[in-house]
Amino acid sequence: MPSYKAPVENVRFLLEDVFGIERYNNLPGFAEASPDLIAAILQEGAKLCEEVLQPLNRTGDLEGCTRHDDGRVTTPKGFKAAYDAFVEGGWIGLAADPDYGGQGLPYTLAAVMNEFASSANMALAMYPGLTMGAIAALMTHGTEEQKKTYLPKMIAGAWSGTMNLTEPHCGTDLGLIKTKAVPNGDGSYAITGTKIFISAGEHDLTENIVHLVLARIEGAPEGTKGISLFVVPKRLVNGDGSLGAANGVSCGSIEHKMGIHGNATCVMNYDGARGWLVGTENKGLNAMFVMMNEARLGVAIQGLAQSEVAYQNAVAYARERLQGRSLTGAKDPDKPADPILVHPDVRRNLLSIRAFNEAARALVLWTALKSDVAHRSGDAAEKQAADDQLGLLTPVLKGVLTDVGFDNAVKAQQMFGGHGYIAEWGMEQFVRDARIAMIYEGANGIQALDLVGRKLPRDGGRAVMAFFNEVGGFVKQHAGDEAMAPYVKPLEAALGHLQQATMWFMNNAMAKPDNAGAGSYDYMHLFGLVALGYMWAQIARTALAKKANGGDAADMEAKLLAGRFFMERTMPESAVHLARISSGADTMMAMPAEMF
Amino acid sequence: MPSYKAPVENVRFLLEDVFGIERYNNLPGFAEASPDLIAAILQEGAKLCEEVLQPLNRTGDLEGCTRHDDGRVTTPKGFKAAYDAFVEGGWIGLAADPDYGGQGLPYTLAAVMNEFASSANMALAMYPGLTMGAIAALMTHGTEEQKKTYLPKMIAGAWSGTMNLTEPHCGTDLGLIKTKAVPNGDGSYAITGTKIFISAGEHDLTENIVHLVLARIEGAPEGTKGISLFVVPKRLVNGDGSLGAANGVSCGSIEHKMGIHGNATCVMNYDGARGWLVGTENKGLNAMFVMMNEARLGVAIQGLAQSEVAYQNAVAYARERLQGRSLTGAKDPDKPADPILVHPDVRRNLLSIRAFNEAARALVLWTALKSDVAHRSGDAAEKQAADDQLGLLTPVLKGVLTDVGFDNAVKAQQMFGGHGYIAEWGMEQFVRDARIAMIYEGANGIQALDLVGRKLPRDGGRAVMAFFNEVGGFVKQHAGDEAMAPYVKPLEAALGHLQQATMWFMNNAMAKPDNAGAGSYDYMHLFGLVALGYMWAQIARTALAKKANGGDAADMEAKLLAGRFFMERTMPESAVHLARISSGADTMMAMPAEMF
Repeated sequence: MPSYKAPVENVRFLLEDVFGIERYNNLPGFAEASPDLIAAILQEGAKLCEEVLQPLNRTGDLEGCTRHDDGRVTTPKGFKAAYDAFVEGGWIGLAADPDYGGQGLPYTLAAVMNEFASSANMALAMYPGLTMGAIAALMTHGTEEQKKTYLPKMIAGAWSGTMNLTEPHCGTDLGLIKTKAVPNGDGSYAITGTKIFISAGEHDLTENIVHLVLARIEGAPEGTKGISLFVVPKRLVNGDGSLGAANGVSCGSIEHKMGIHGNATCVMNYDGARGWLVGTENKGLNAMFVMMNEARLGVAIQGLAQSEVAYQNAVAYARERLQGRSLTGAKDPDKPADPILVHPDVRRNLLSIRAFNEAARALVLWTALKSDVAHRSGDAAEKQAADDQLGLLTPVLKGVLTDVGFDNAVKAQQMFGGHGYIAEWGMEQFVRDARIAMIYEGANGIQALDLVGRKLPRDGGRAVMAFFNEVGGFVKQHAGDEAMAPYVKPLEAALGHLQQATMWFMNNAMAKPDNAGAGSYDYMHLFGLVALGYMWAQIARTALAKKANGGDAADMEAKLLAGRFFMERTMPESAVHLARISSGADTMMAMPAEMF
Repeated sequence: MPSYKAPVENVRFLLEDVFGIERYNNLPGFAEASPDLIAAILQEGAKLCEEVLQPLNRTGDLEGCTRHDDGRVTTPKGFKAAYDAFVEGGWIGLAADPDYGGQGLPYTLAAVMNEFASSANMALAMYPGLTMGAIAALMTHGTEEQKKTYLPKMIAGAWSGTMNLTEPHCGTDLGLIKTKAVPNGDGSYAITGTKIFISAGEHDLTENIVHLVLARIEGAPEGTKGISLFVVPKRLVNGDGSLGAANGVSCGSIEHKMGIHGNATCVMNYDGARGWLVGTENKGLNAMFVMMNEARLGVAIQGLAQSEVAYQNAVAYARERLQGRSLTGAKDPDKPADPILVHPDVRRNLLSIRAFNEAARALVLWTALKSDVAHRSGDAAEKQAADDQLGLLTPVLKGVLTDVGFDNAVKAQQMFGGHGYIAEWGMEQFVRDARIAMIYEGANGIQALDLVGRKLPRDGGRAVMAFFNEVGGFVKQHAGDEAMAPYVKPLEAALGHLQQATMWFMNNAMAKPDNAGAGSYDYMHLFGLVALGYMWAQIARTALAKKANGGDAADMEAKLLAGRFFMERTMPESAVHLARISSGADTMMAMPAEMF
């Protein structure tokens, strides 16, 4: 059976030592979050994830969710009690507005808890995760009445949230949405249509479910400009906040899918259900994007989370499994064989995962801090700069962390040989669960298009120029530092490739947009490489300083080695991405459709 | 529901046009295999796979195998009839020795049928596949009596075969095997022990099962030098060839695993079962290697097979799914959206799979022809040269075709968005089934070590030098050919990287073997790139010639485009592999075990 230990120390090192979280004490909620409080919160969260959520991961996968004939959905045994423990710990409202019952602590800490919970039990963590996304959307676009009606209950975990976008004939292209909204004359709308792939659409964890639904108001313009967002509770809410009658929404079926069996993926049928407009008419996609952007970061974190838990179990196995002898002579001559961790190829495999995980965690925290600044800073310029970076980095994190996270789960599974393929060892579940993160909240190809088509050119390239300046500035600052050279030189080379690729788009994609589409996926991964490399360079700088001061020498040396591994073995990929991007679209577009 | 169409035309193009199979007519079995007969055989095989095997793929996955309390194992509904149809088609004995009932046709044709059958239904195809491997082992190392007893029944499909290597505490390191063999005094041995992960170990398709079992004869030396191979029938065979009493071997349980649910993966308990020595005492690993090498090629083909069927279904979906508009303006303005095949990133994804599949198929056929020459040629030098290449290429094909085949199944699944994650579409089954091919018959890390540690240095590097000479000779021959330049120049660059990597091992791994282990995996993939690139260069040469002669211009142009895509987008990876190899083992070996 797999196990999990939350990487509390690594998070503290990143927050306190690398990113100096005390520098953010001017932001609301940060001054309260002293290092001691952060440590206590992380310990508490780790305990919940390790002891309550993780033991239900495999049983939840085996049992799955059940839809009954009356449309009710039952989650796997133990999920309700675990969800209640999650709620009682105050985790849903950790970063939410205190005016509605939240604790107002940094979103960054909620992102950390999301990693821990997703490592422990991704299917279970999705239920509160979706609620947190829905809270963010209502917080930004809801009326005061909507906020008062829904937020306290959602923050308290009594009601959960969902997002309803996809329909059978449309996922990526939301302009094709057919679900319609007809005014009832009392300020509400009658919502009718079918939504598919609705995670946590129906379940037995909460007394109500708050659906955020994209639909088209009768007579609205065609395409994406005619989509509005509605809040549609499963049970109607009385004037006094108590629960009223059932609304006209029900779960028609649940999907049988590759993984995340513990989360109910529902077909939701809306049959004149009463809904209320959230935000402006026909601007529903804008409003939903608040939830989607938060969800995309959440999904990126799931990629890291599966990579981390898969890594931990692969290392434990590599320490215990005795097979073969070291190439340089027996290391454990008294035993029948050496542990497989002596073999270079096993170390290569494991280090490639570990070197990603630490940098990816840093990148998540760095981006989460930008999100906190973007949402909480009182300084307009600082706020804008942070929001720029958040927008730029969100598709990169979503695409790269889920792609590599999945690959890493596969690599970790590989360490187990045949046992990795057998269900009881749990490794194959990590692979199946990790797979969805590359698909939902915008398939990774869409993330790449979002990055290249929208985020790059926005505001004359302001965000990407700021990113280049920051990384380039770091490189320049440490140009003469010999101890930093193994980290800075590869970063400089990869940054150069990224800048060349950006320039190539400017020169070749304006007149011929297919050249942007053809290079978008590689550009996203090239961007991710540079961002991860920049994280390692910052970690290395901190580790060198701490080591010089005599602090945690062995730990710091391990970080320096893992970072060096990343620079030697992963960073060289930047040149391939540039070569692919520069090869353009001609060959692929020349192929006639019928010849594929 | 997924579908499948066997790539008969592509196989004929490769065999007839690219490799000129008529050049092999001096080999036994080849003269009979005229182009017309080959076409008829391939059509017949395609029909069986498309109409009989494929429709059972998804139902077999859903139902799986069942072990009953008495130890019997039932395969999914329809498998027995489909197996019988496979047997009646004479497919098991297609390439087997006519003296024992085989048809003596080229092994190359059996390899093609293996691809078709594995695309259609990998779990089902494994049953006869293992029999064919066992036939090869008995053919090479069995006594005349053993051959007469077992081969006709196995070739006729009445009895099936298995290979029993793995035990709970050992897989890769077979020197640790504990299963023991005690002489009964009548020429037979009593075999006792537990074997795990035995594919097709017990089932209801045949009246008998012939287990080939590695065990240690009492008093044998420790380690791999004390392992012998035994043939252990499930039911004993009377002197007249009829079936006798049940032998002391039974299926203790079947595994619940990620995929290939239709194939029974068994724990086999040997309790004093009667077995007979195959080959020489204590030389069992050598004997088993005959079966393993054939099996490794078979597994490589499974990687290609899953990539092919996943690709076909992804293309069909990309043609039908309407979503979004082309970046260069609507292509189907009358429809609500364009088919997603208009998007460059979708084409990139699909072409990366297709460009691999065609080259991988060529590489399989090229290697299979080497196998035919190695086993059938009367010319000692030709035989030796072919055997060298077969030995060199087997780990490359096993490692690279299964790694990339799995990645491609994942890429094809991605084209379906959320639908790819839903079981009923069938794409996630391809991913789950393809995953095992990276693990069994020697995990891919072991293939890499076999390549670098054994196949490279063998006979003073004779095999690898011959490979370099052949590819280098092709490059030189076409150096001045402008039409070939887009294929030859990238091949030349990658060959250069491969040669540099080989030289790096010579200079750095002799004194420090960890440097070989640290670079072995990248070396295997670098080798694969060059081999696949060489296949594309040969295909391009043929396609250019046929196009110039006015033959199948559109088809040939599509091949030239796919090959160009491979050269532009995949070949550049060679530089990264070289960079990684050259970074050596220092960083990874410096990490203390407790710091992983």
